[in-house]
Amino acid sequence: MTLLLHLADFNERSWADKFAAALPGRRVVLRGDDFDPKEIEYIFIWKPKPDAFDGLDNLKAVLSLGAGVDALLRHPRLPAGVPVVRFMDEDLTQRMSDYVLQNVLLHQRLATRFKRDQAAKRWVQLYPAPAWDAVVGVMGLGQLGQDAIRHLKVFGYKLRGWSRTPKTIEGVETFAGEAEFDTFLAGTDILVNLLPLTPETRGILNHETFAKLHRGGLDGEGPVVINAARGGHQKEADIVRALQDGTLWAASLDVFEVEPLPKESPLWDMDNVYITPHIAAASSERTGVAYFSKVIKDHEKGLPLPNVVDVTRGY
Amino acid sequence: MTLLLHLADFNERSWADKFAAALPGRRVVLRGDDFDPKEIEYIFIWKPKPDAFDGLDNLKAVLSLGAGVDALLRHPRLPAGVPVVRFMDEDLTQRMSDYVLQNVLLHQRLATRFKRDQAAKRWVQLYPAPAWDAVVGVMGLGQLGQDAIRHLKVFGYKLRGWSRTPKTIEGVETFAGEAEFDTFLAGTDILVNLLPLTPETRGILNHETFAKLHRGGLDGEGPVVINAARGGHQKEADIVRALQDGTLWAASLDVFEVEPLPKESPLWDMDNVYITPHIAAASSERTGVAYFSKVIKDHEKGLPLPNVVDVTRGY
Repeated sequence: MTLLLHLADFNERSWADKFAAALPGRRVVLRGDDFDPKEIEYIFIWKPKPDAFDGLDNLKAVLSLGAGVDALLRHPRLPAGVPVVRFMDEDLTQRMSDYVLQNVLLHQRLATRFKRDQAAKRWVQLYPAPAWDAVVGVMGLGQLGQDAIRHLKVFGYKLRGWSRTPKTIEGVETFAGEAEFDTFLAGTDILVNLLPLTPETRGILNHETFAKLHRGGLDGEGPVVINAARGGHQKEADIVRALQDGTLWAASLDVFEVEPLPKESPLWDMDNVYITPHIAAASSERTGVAYFSKVIKDHEKGLPLPNVVDVTRGY
Repeated sequence: MTLLLHLADFNERSWADKFAAALPGRRVVLRGDDFDPKEIEYIFIWKPKPDAFDGLDNLKAVLSLGAGVDALLRHPRLPAGVPVVRFMDEDLTQRMSDYVLQNVLLHQRLATRFKRDQAAKRWVQLYPAPAWDAVVGVMGLGQLGQDAIRHLKVFGYKLRGWSRTPKTIEGVETFAGEAEFDTFLAGTDILVNLLPLTPETRGILNHETFAKLHRGGLDGEGPVVINAARGGHQKEADIVRALQDGTLWAASLDVFEVEPLPKESPLWDMDNVYITPHIAAASSERTGVAYFSKVIKDHEKGLPLPNVVDVTRGY
């Protein structure tokens, strides 16, 4: 078995050393190495170049370092019929829940208000309403969405969830599909996006969506949006406009239409926007190697691949 | 039975109406009302004036709106031998845990770093270490400390606790008394103060304490302090100095030596200080009235008073 690493923007050599140690008796190669494309059975990939899959005629699986596979699925030469396995482990899930809770608590506790008071040296004792007065609406009810919900429950938030197909989650009012989207939004104060990026969800975070959110929540400050999924979900010009015209009170954004976010973006200067550079949840070398070396070893033993992407569905 | 309300800085009339509704058949009076001091059996109090207890010769209990009773216990004319009951309910506890988790997550997720990057329009992809790489040290292991710990556990933080007397809490490395204080500090990245204010704990958040905290945690940024207890616990000049000389990376402060925090304080302008105006956890009218009207009714039936303060211990 030979594993090919194709990790643009990452330290491939460091990953390769760790994979070699975790997969004794197998060969681990990098793009520049001397190997026959026909010997490659697995490719571990991040940001594939146009020729990433050329000549890989004996590929058994494409292993995606990212949990989101939208860019990979758009690759014009992704070999048809070869299963795509996406990364999903406790470490990634926990980091995403850390990010979501950090930002939900930030807005429920009215951090923007107190930040502005601090800047003005103003002492105004407003006691933020308790967590159970705020409705958090989670878009996307896969592993990440459900883990975020598990954490949100501990604080007593009122919970809503929205997904493509109907799901039942204890303690969560769930909504499905386009038909129930507006009802979902109408009761939501804090909108959390954890959707996969598909043609149906592209641009879903737009002004029309924001205008349908519940007004008057968060001690009267109004709705907020938290996007930890993909920049393609959001229309940034709409976010700026919604923040300026009061349709949104604040926004936490980890992803952007163009990354790095261009210096010209008005988002940088807005004091009710919390920017992080696409770092909400990352696959670490340690956990990524542990996960995918187990995937390969299990597959060699004849066990099924986990977290295989449904290519027609897009996630 | 007559209940006297003595709530400086609060809307006493609104509280009185709610108590009257919750305690049918009993009399509820305010300081300005026409009543005989000898008829008062219970006083519900916040920020007592010097004459607060004068003439109240038949007092059965002093009911404290605050969970912290340090100011009340320092009152020179607090009647000796009358039990003091402090407020402590699920609502107050939950709000405090919201505050603690908001601020622990803020620092673990390196918010100050990303805020500075945003101000400079810098895109630097540092992935914050996961929660289980950070050690949170909680000072004070009463009801508030233990509830904060319950929430922190959900995220997987490594946990330490310090209290006056030894306590055993599952999943928490506990330390007690002055003898173990330095060892407790030496392993702590995020120091959370929830102690009662007593002569022993006054000024405990000082430069010497900060210098004993673990260095190199939080992705190398260093230790932080979160104070949600009392301003008397902290030496603000030391906090400013520790933030300036790098002994501390950041601080979340809900309480101050003088409140409101004077305009001259250098803390207002520091971008690694998160100021809130003593609003971390408040007793709401609804929950305060529910709690203390039950205390009074139970006591009338001969049941013991809950959460009675040990006056010699100070909490």
